[in-house]
Amino acid sequence: MFRFSVTAREERGAARTGLLETAHGRVETPAFFPVGTRAAVKGLPWSMVRELGAQAVLNNTYHLYLRPGSGLVRELGGLHRFSGWDRPIVTDSGGYQVFSLAPLRKISEEGITFQSHIDGSRHLLTPERVMEIQQELGADIILALDECIPWPSDEAHTRKGTELTTRWAARCRAHFTDTAEQTLFAIVQGGMSPGLRTWSAHSLVDIGFAGYAIGGLSVGEPKELMAEMVEVSVAALPDEAPRHLMGVGSPVDILEGVDRGIDWFDCAFPTRNARNGSLYTSQGKINIKNERWKDDPRPLDPECSCPACREYSRAYLRHLYVSGEIGAAVLNTLHNLAFYLDMMRKIRHSIASCGFATLKAELLERLS
Amino acid sequence: MFRFSVTAREERGAARTGLLETAHGRVETPAFFPVGTRAAVKGLPWSMVRELGAQAVLNNTYHLYLRPGSGLVRELGGLHRFSGWDRPIVTDSGGYQVFSLAPLRKISEEGITFQSHIDGSRHLLTPERVMEIQQELGADIILALDECIPWPSDEAHTRKGTELTTRWAARCRAHFTDTAEQTLFAIVQGGMSPGLRTWSAHSLVDIGFAGYAIGGLSVGEPKELMAEMVEVSVAALPDEAPRHLMGVGSPVDILEGVDRGIDWFDCAFPTRNARNGSLYTSQGKINIKNERWKDDPRPLDPECSCPACREYSRAYLRHLYVSGEIGAAVLNTLHNLAFYLDMMRKIRHSIASCGFATLKAELLERLS
Repeated sequence: MFRFSVTAREERGAARTGLLETAHGRVETPAFFPVGTRAAVKGLPWSMVRELGAQAVLNNTYHLYLRPGSGLVRELGGLHRFSGWDRPIVTDSGGYQVFSLAPLRKISEEGITFQSHIDGSRHLLTPERVMEIQQELGADIILALDECIPWPSDEAHTRKGTELTTRWAARCRAHFTDTAEQTLFAIVQGGMSPGLRTWSAHSLVDIGFAGYAIGGLSVGEPKELMAEMVEVSVAALPDEAPRHLMGVGSPVDILEGVDRGIDWFDCAFPTRNARNGSLYTSQGKINIKNERWKDDPRPLDPECSCPACREYSRAYLRHLYVSGEIGAAVLNTLHNLAFYLDMMRKIRHSIASCGFATLKAELLERLS
Repeated sequence: MFRFSVTAREERGAARTGLLETAHGRVETPAFFPVGTRAAVKGLPWSMVRELGAQAVLNNTYHLYLRPGSGLVRELGGLHRFSGWDRPIVTDSGGYQVFSLAPLRKISEEGITFQSHIDGSRHLLTPERVMEIQQELGADIILALDECIPWPSDEAHTRKGTELTTRWAARCRAHFTDTAEQTLFAIVQGGMSPGLRTWSAHSLVDIGFAGYAIGGLSVGEPKELMAEMVEVSVAALPDEAPRHLMGVGSPVDILEGVDRGIDWFDCAFPTRNARNGSLYTSQGKINIKNERWKDDPRPLDPECSCPACREYSRAYLRHLYVSGEIGAAVLNTLHNLAFYLDMMRKIRHSIASCGFATLKAELLERLS
């Protein structure tokens, strides 16, 4: 089962609320999907992720393919059964991780050859193989193989990668038919070229997918450029299809994305930053390792109701962090995810009551 | 407030149930106190430790004195307020950690001089200073400074350390008067000498403490020797006073200790082993990293109702462990503590119904 419907729209701008329905439950959008790279959100048992109100998560195909292996996951009943997360799951195509993690990767029309970053073994990811791997993993939403185009890249390179992404998407489409359990999305590329972004989106829509991800952003480009590319990509996509902005981003990036019609986001920022002691609060970001918190009895964020803020002081959280306690990662991750998920709830509520523009202005002021 | 009463006794043997009452609540004994070295059980927020049913914890004076500093903890309201753990706390004297962690330690009549393992700074721990530090920390039960006698040691060395421990206990007693919030225990030493154990206990009882810890065991000696030393020490202590067997031990050690009249235990085994993937189950110990669990869909321990066993398979727990996920430490620690605390509940119940001997025999059979 896969259904997406727009439930409310902001009067000005493209922000909208929606309802995604999958075989593993519903997701109210705009939504943030925590990243659970290896079928786990680093540091948190699923019970905690559920209690925070996460509606869905993203798992990384590349990592799970290499370890424990997609065949093993299938044998154990698929990702939901294997990991214990019973709500919707998205798996990415693995393309991005191959580019950022694997040594000796090589791209050809056929697919991507790479060496495992774990044991050096050689692998070939073709569009067809990526479909099979994701079928074995069994996520609710799976993604077509794409070439992640670095920034900056020249027009020729960008065009080549964008066209290849569309040809790979067509091969994925030919190899995989949406089922009651799984739905395939394609990924819009096009680098920082408005023309190629539009071409990419149109060419993928011509092939036909139930939803579209927007990839290749938040790769180092200026914020304005990212916002423009989101805008151009969304404009070329059908209004009724859901839009996933991949690997984005900061709270500000998310506000800008929602304003341009994005329905969901995934990003490692809140979890990775948490492990580095960088914490989001209603008054801006703070680094918990800073000496100034060492005797501060106040909660991290007095406006937050997460367990870390309800039960601990900044002084104690700093103590855990500087002592290298594992619990620091647990509590900091809890908090950062609570911050993101809470912001998404506020965003949804504000759109439903046509107050998104006001909320966005207020949050931008506080966060910057 | 400090009160201890024996509530039931096993017909044969010295096993007994009791009730400890402190300013931060009650503890039903025999009990196991998880170790929260730096005012945190590694990997678990207190909410989880509470849900597991831990009644009290032990924090390490040595670590907290060095970081964040006992002065800071006092300024922030003491350990309970600082850490967020609202049930009873025991702090040890720091003596054991100085011996196991600090370089260049030197012992004299006055106290122990040592260098911090963190920054190399020099410190002197006298009995008086150890009282002051533990007053600043504010635990419910504090311990007198002792000399931890290594095993093996000759009779002369053992005698010297045991006598020094008693003189230090007298200085602690002179410097600290039990209050409504804090009670001082002394530590029985005596190495592996029955005579010195008895002398140590008698000399401490002559000084007079509300309770007694038994130290210097589980330092490498054979199990039979430890059991004998516990028996001899307990025999020399007043029946009405509670007995804490320090740093012990394995489930088998705990069963043997209870059988000899021990009221509570603290030990890093369950938490440290958890982080190494070594997990206790009703069928014996297993190492979760073992390849044989890689496709095992069964729970870790079908007889356990902890969150790790309720919600995850051995295959998934192994995947987390071999992937180096932080969540592995969280779930494994949850399970091992659940195993210990569950065993203590069974022990208390069995004593109350005069079935401890049967339970002990059954558990020894399963665990060995």
